[in-house]
Amino acid sequence: MNVINLDHISFNPLLPEVREAMIDAINNKDLHNPSSQHKAGEKSAEMLAQARQNVADLINAADPKEVVFTSGGTESVNHAVKGAAMANREKGNHIIATNIEHNSVIRSLKRLSAQGFKVTSLSVDESGRVDPAAVADAITDQTILISVMHSNNETGTIQPIAEIGAIARENKVLFHCDAVDSVGVVPVDVQALNADLLSFASNPFYGPTGAGGLYIRRGTRIFPLLDGGVQEHNKRAGTENLIGIIGMGKAAQLAAAHMEERRAHLADLKKYLVEQLPQYVDEYIINTNPDHSLPNLLNISLKYIEGESVMLMLDEENLAVSTKSACATGSLRASHVLLSLGLSHSDAQGTLVIAWGIDNSKDDLQKLLSTLSGVVSTLRSMSPLYQK
Amino acid sequence: MNVINLDHISFNPLLPEVREAMIDAINNKDLHNPSSQHKAGEKSAEMLAQARQNVADLINAADPKEVVFTSGGTESVNHAVKGAAMANREKGNHIIATNIEHNSVIRSLKRLSAQGFKVTSLSVDESGRVDPAAVADAITDQTILISVMHSNNETGTIQPIAEIGAIARENKVLFHCDAVDSVGVVPVDVQALNADLLSFASNPFYGPTGAGGLYIRRGTRIFPLLDGGVQEHNKRAGTENLIGIIGMGKAAQLAAAHMEERRAHLADLKKYLVEQLPQYVDEYIINTNPDHSLPNLLNISLKYIEGESVMLMLDEENLAVSTKSACATGSLRASHVLLSLGLSHSDAQGTLVIAWGIDNSKDDLQKLLSTLSGVVSTLRSMSPLYQK
Repeated sequence: MNVINLDHISFNPLLPEVREAMIDAINNKDLHNPSSQHKAGEKSAEMLAQARQNVADLINAADPKEVVFTSGGTESVNHAVKGAAMANREKGNHIIATNIEHNSVIRSLKRLSAQGFKVTSLSVDESGRVDPAAVADAITDQTILISVMHSNNETGTIQPIAEIGAIARENKVLFHCDAVDSVGVVPVDVQALNADLLSFASNPFYGPTGAGGLYIRRGTRIFPLLDGGVQEHNKRAGTENLIGIIGMGKAAQLAAAHMEERRAHLADLKKYLVEQLPQYVDEYIINTNPDHSLPNLLNISLKYIEGESVMLMLDEENLAVSTKSACATGSLRASHVLLSLGLSHSDAQGTLVIAWGIDNSKDDLQKLLSTLSGVVSTLRSMSPLYQK
Repeated sequence: MNVINLDHISFNPLLPEVREAMIDAINNKDLHNPSSQHKAGEKSAEMLAQARQNVADLINAADPKEVVFTSGGTESVNHAVKGAAMANREKGNHIIATNIEHNSVIRSLKRLSAQGFKVTSLSVDESGRVDPAAVADAITDQTILISVMHSNNETGTIQPIAEIGAIARENKVLFHCDAVDSVGVVPVDVQALNADLLSFASNPFYGPTGAGGLYIRRGTRIFPLLDGGVQEHNKRAGTENLIGIIGMGKAAQLAAAHMEERRAHLADLKKYLVEQLPQYVDEYIINTNPDHSLPNLLNISLKYIEGESVMLMLDEENLAVSTKSACATGSLRASHVLLSLGLSHSDAQGTLVIAWGIDNSKDDLQKLLSTLSGVVSTLRSMSPLYQK
């Protein structure tokens, strides 16, 4: 199989150096439980500490102890949202979020609602962004948590996080930022963003799935999601995923070192795609904010046809794209994110998420465009909605 | 470093075949998100399905869909205990456990207590076992969950789980068994045990840390611990730890295939250790049940001295043992498990957990015994408590 991966939002391949680090760890005869009491444990604890330092550097945490390793973005988000809400329940029961958050936030909030928490879910404008003033307006004396995502996993649109963080700080409300699709792709600085809690995962920066982290600013009142042993400074119980974390540490180091050159390459591909697109297809909507968005993703809605059919026909030609979040596969409903932008149901159904990576080239996009052109023509010629 | 690992309860080395499977996965260029919609995703979904089948076979689950992959034993236990309690809250608020459970159970129950649940924590007898009749007596019309561990992680003592499971079934109360240190080491059959929920982890059967699972019998009412995407049949959100799970799947297959020969080897080492011990040290207590216990662990309390000092002196000689659960490292308190057996605080402080694996030999134990003999003499000669 020689598939061109333009579905990087679902999966990024491991970098060669990450592979090497993980294989070295797998073959390391001295590997042991980092919490065990003897020499062998100490050596593994050092490897863990190095990974923690690399990750802390990537997000500019003041102290590596503020980084808690988790099993990925979803655990981080659940920990942040549920843990902060439950730990601050005596202060208030009101939480503010947006209606384009990832399902890990939305469903965590639904769980909390059933336990008496009240949630204000803010709308985004047509360009997909929330107004910081609306966040400020929503704050009451019961507000204990604000949770807003850094970039959206379907559209790539980036929110005004620093402004929202400043408002949260000013109002002494905890601020969680779900930065799963941003950390390691664009600069994310917990100090500049005023984030008290920040969720991230390793795969978006070419580390393994099953490894992620939660930044918890020192002094933040939060309960663990996983109760048990005293690992992770008593903030997350359970023996660490050592091999995955070592891979994530290496990936974090490389992401920090090569951030700018990667960004330039990804942004160059985006510019090319946006410029070329009108020469290959017509009647489409770009759902990604032109000024505030990730450099590696474009979300388009192709009118009169089903994104699902486009995706399957591209798959036949060994081009992998997606129509929505992999987390929502199996769900038949139109994306809540696209509906929030004001798209009609039928336009939302015509959506394609094209997400490239540092391993892609203009040739890959060229192949996509020329194939897409034929696919769209074929599907529209069969569509009862389409009249040329 | 050439350490003899007699601390297998903290960490088991990866088997060569497990290493190979993980390295193959790492080097597999077709690896993708198993939930993604295209061909590349399908291939990874197949690998995941194979691992799930292997794990289901190991515990005799009727349907692989009853196996939910998690980040390890702690997540499984938190999911089982908190998820079952919250989902069945309307039926009642009473939970039964024992006072020798792992901290992941104990602290999950503490968290639930703060939310209005009532917990009955049953004592064990001097041999470390709970009486099934005591479980039956503790059931009220408010009881929604019974949680008892299969084997204890410090003493290796095995509980009468099948009897307790039958009582739970008879009384229509959900039964969770924390079988983290048993699955893959001794036969664990969810049908024979009448378990509705059963937690396990990959490392005890020589798979990687950071991978585990929760058996959820079809029809069991339980909430997810990780809310978000629709992965794991909507029971556990988050992109799967693909490489770790592939390693666990291979380890599960090997554990099932070689269960009996491994058990025979481990039991042989245990017999040797118990028989030889009196020739090397005196005045000790064996805290492991002689008839009902894991074949790979012996917990002894050496009178008049500190287990911590013994452990450190053995470490100097490249012999890795532990004094308690790695999950409790950093905690200065005497083990709640040993105190529950009726041990005095000072005897509990003299405890050593010796845990061997399939990679150990009688020579390793012989080296331990002869070194231990000298260490104990030295420490006792300095102990104010010891008078020869």
